Amino acid sequence: MTKMNRQFRLAKRPAGMVSASDFSRAESPVEAPGDGEALVQTRFLSLDPAMRGWMNEGKSYVPPVGIGEVMRAGGIGEVLESSDAALQPGDTVVGMLGVQTLGTHKSNSLRKVDPALATLPKYLGVLGMPGMTAYFGLLDVGQPKAGDTVVVSGAAGAVGQLVGQIAKLKGCRVVGIAGGAKKCEFARKELGFDECLDHRAGDLRAELKRACPDGIDVYFDNVGGEILDLVLARLKMKARVVICGAISQYNNAGPMKGPANYMSLLVNRARMEGFVVFDYAKRYGEAVHDLAQWMKDGKLQSREHVVSGFDRFPEALLMLFSGANHGKLVLDVEPQ
Amino acid sequence: MTKMNRQFRLAKRPAGMVSASDFSRAESPVEAPGDGEALVQTRFLSLDPAMRGWMNEGKSYVPPVGIGEVMRAGGIGEVLESSDAALQPGDTVVGMLGVQTLGTHKSNSLRKVDPALATLPKYLGVLGMPGMTAYFGLLDVGQPKAGDTVVVSGAAGAVGQLVGQIAKLKGCRVVGIAGGAKKCEFARKELGFDECLDHRAGDLRAELKRACPDGIDVYFDNVGGEILDLVLARLKMKARVVICGAISQYNNAGPMKGPANYMSLLVNRARMEGFVVFDYAKRYGEAVHDLAQWMKDGKLQSREHVVSGFDRFPEALLMLFSGANHGKLVLDVEPQ
Repeated sequence: MTKMNRQFRLAKRPAGMVSASDFSRAESPVEAPGDGEALVQTRFLSLDPAMRGWMNEGKSYVPPVGIGEVMRAGGIGEVLESSDAALQPGDTVVGMLGVQTLGTHKSNSLRKVDPALATLPKYLGVLGMPGMTAYFGLLDVGQPKAGDTVVVSGAAGAVGQLVGQIAKLKGCRVVGIAGGAKKCEFARKELGFDECLDHRAGDLRAELKRACPDGIDVYFDNVGGEILDLVLARLKMKARVVICGAISQYNNAGPMKGPANYMSLLVNRARMEGFVVFDYAKRYGEAVHDLAQWMKDGKLQSREHVVSGFDRFPEALLMLFSGANHGKLVLDVEPQ
Repeated sequence: MTKMNRQFRLAKRPAGMVSASDFSRAESPVEAPGDGEALVQTRFLSLDPAMRGWMNEGKSYVPPVGIGEVMRAGGIGEVLESSDAALQPGDTVVGMLGVQTLGTHKSNSLRKVDPALATLPKYLGVLGMPGMTAYFGLLDVGQPKAGDTVVVSGAAGAVGQLVGQIAKLKGCRVVGIAGGAKKCEFARKELGFDECLDHRAGDLRAELKRACPDGIDVYFDNVGGEILDLVLARLKMKARVVICGAISQYNNAGPMKGPANYMSLLVNRARMEGFVVFDYAKRYGEAVHDLAQWMKDGKLQSREHVVSGFDRFPEALLMLFSGANHGKLVLDVEPQ
């Protein structure tokens, strides 16, 4: 019996805000895995801000998704068939599974994980790319020292929630920025941030001044836009600004808003630096070791926001940009 | 006989472009130097883009000039009287002399130089702050390696002309950006830059692509604005962007234009870093040694643009922002 694979393909390049009509639904029979391949049933898909960038034409750190191709996405699933002795039916694997219910993949592009150690969504969050991103972006690029004031935007998001907790573990004072009182309360009460400022509540400039009276040593930026500018205005000498993302700008139809206060880098002898997590692939083991240990010791929490049902992919993706998700956003493809 | 000191004082804070009416002329009798002070006759004043920033209200790396105060400026002059054994009448000294013909200064704020070794304007250029700025900004912050492609804006200006030549001495390929064919020809033919692009001539985007087909390793930015954005779009992996100035933006009445292409820092794992030359004060000797040696060996040229007459201070200062100067701009206070 031929299995059918349901998919969301990129139908057109979005102009401005992504919408459901940028995707087309398709269904096709699954091909049997060839040599060195495995057939995987998708269980959870990772929905990430970076996906918006992959939908644009043009050079970036990875090629864009082509029109008509299955939308790119990371995911976790179960091996159904395998032509590679390293993978067996029933194995749980993570990889770039794409927005589809079933897929044939090169088995060396899949990584086997132990589903007994953590829930599957955590393998897309704290133990997946967001975990690696938070760990290396903060520690390697941001280089926080004990006593530093660390500010992180998107503080209740997949990466931000981890950045703040890791900074606390390193002895820093942590101030989060998030949209909404509920997210801020979560960051303070559940994650242990010293402060969390609600950028929707009012005067973020004044709030930053109150919460960071001596300035900011490290800023981990997930959002860009006005918030980046306000933080730049409060940098301390030799501050480090880690550019991880700019979600507020990804759906602009026109050019991005550049940081008008960038000359604060000069006044404060500070630096702004970007990174791409894939560069740290050889060191992922180091991060997974630390993150898993901190989880086991009860020192690191992580929250996932699960949307159920493959068909809800477009509306779930949009939640990232409206800020409707609270925690790492994942799609439960075939709720059991 | 009491000597009279002629001065330009800051009359008001400019709104947008600086103008002659932002200054007031004054004349006052000179005070005899007290203990540890010296009376100095100004010979040449240094006119620098940074002066525009000092005219603004608000926190920066130095306090603003107060309304009614003598405008701040570096200069070189001759000691007329001294109450400090370390300085003698006739000595040539550099320091923050201010926009005045005569002044009483703390002698420990003055540095004695040898007028036989270089012309006086060179002590305000290649052997002064612009030289220190080019040397430490390029070598310490930009960290060029032999074979790197180094781009510098303001290529015929006080700092830019030196940055490009130092980069050549370090084995880099150097592409300047300047306003006007004459400045570009100077950079190529006199200074030995590999290329110099005239940003007034047309399509700088296409010209940058042609001149830097493999991208840019180090960008030394003196100008900000559109040019910074165009360069950001052509960064190579691990590029370094040195923020030295943003002269295109200093006279904006509204906010600065931020670099819309700053996410190129992420895509290219690059960094943008500011610096203030005063931080290198303890190492100035190192720079002066190298710069003087290179000049002596005929490996380093420098051009100064001398405007004659103290009264022409406001119009001379404006030349910086229209780009009318070609080389380090200095004011000859009392042409002999």
